[in-house]
Amino acid sequence: MDNLEEKTIHSEEIFSGKVISLQIQEVELPNGKKSKREIIKHPGAVAVIAITNENKIVMVEQYRKALERTIVEIPAGKLEKGEDPALCAHRELEEETSYVCESLELLTSFYTSPGFADEIIHVYLAKGLSKKENSAALDEDEFVNIEELTLDEAIQYMKDQKIYDAKTIYAIQYLQLQEALAK
Amino acid sequence: MDNLEEKTIHSEEIFSGKVISLQIQEVELPNGKKSKREIIKHPGAVAVIAITNENKIVMVEQYRKALERTIVEIPAGKLEKGEDPALCAHRELEEETSYVCESLELLTSFYTSPGFADEIIHVYLAKGLSKKENSAALDEDEFVNIEELTLDEAIQYMKDQKIYDAKTIYAIQYLQLQEALAK
Repeated sequence: MDNLEEKTIHSEEIFSGKVISLQIQEVELPNGKKSKREIIKHPGAVAVIAITNENKIVMVEQYRKALERTIVEIPAGKLEKGEDPALCAHRELEEETSYVCESLELLTSFYTSPGFADEIIHVYLAKGLSKKENSAALDEDEFVNIEELTLDEAIQYMKDQKIYDAKTIYAIQYLQLQEALAK
Repeated sequence: MDNLEEKTIHSEEIFSGKVISLQIQEVELPNGKKSKREIIKHPGAVAVIAITNENKIVMVEQYRKALERTIVEIPAGKLEKGEDPALCAHRELEEETSYVCESLELLTSFYTSPGFADEIIHVYLAKGLSKKENSAALDEDEFVNIEELTLDEAIQYMKDQKIYDAKTIYAIQYLQLQEALAK
């Protein structure tokens, strides 16, 4: 099929919150029939693979209400309106871990759930870390525990399902690949 | 901080659709203050890294209304209520690509967007593929183009942002890692 486009016939905003909004879109399918799509709009996010001078990966443990449990993730956060993703990566790294970094490299960007959401995550690699005194504070509804893991420890956390989300599993596999390619 | 749990004070369902539902939960934070969480409930999904006997990766091009564009992804689909993920992987592979497989191995499972959604994806590796005549049909609102790519072609698609989603970028990196480890 040449043209897979789904044209919007009608769009209705059901909800607009502080993180996401929800739209129901009536669409015309490629065969001319109609269907409805449930669409979540999200401002986008950044995540940071931050490697300490001791070659450990900086992680944050955080309660995720959607999962009703804590998981251990690489530092990450939502883009503010119009914010440059690299600046956001510096900001979130400092707020969540008190680390600042000398170098920041964009590794990849991906949509997390293209079937229903437009959330994109930009994943950065941060090196040359140092702890900052009086670093920027977390949002007032954010509480995290910081952990610094070796790659082997992170792989074990993944097997134990303490690490359990797309960006962090991508990060571990990225580091495994770099290690394998360096041999 | 020992206990990061956020207790639910009140939960309200704002919307319940065919794919997702939306709840607003009022929570008590670890410091005793209150906040609101916007939570998307999703039935979960499977994705399949399917490798042909010619060592190509089976991909589907699909229009994603949330992104207003097509992207190229590994075959995937939502779990039906109570459905076994492995059976779902067989079903989605056949429906989207007409391939059936001899072996199916669970590689990993991950939450796609733990900040606002409980969607989990189970990623399988399928081998021993053969095309099935009169294979199960797509859902009536699904339209896809099938592509079979070498790993190098898939990496180029990723650079060109034709491949642009978490599960497919995980899949490519998984195959790169296997190739690096085999050397």
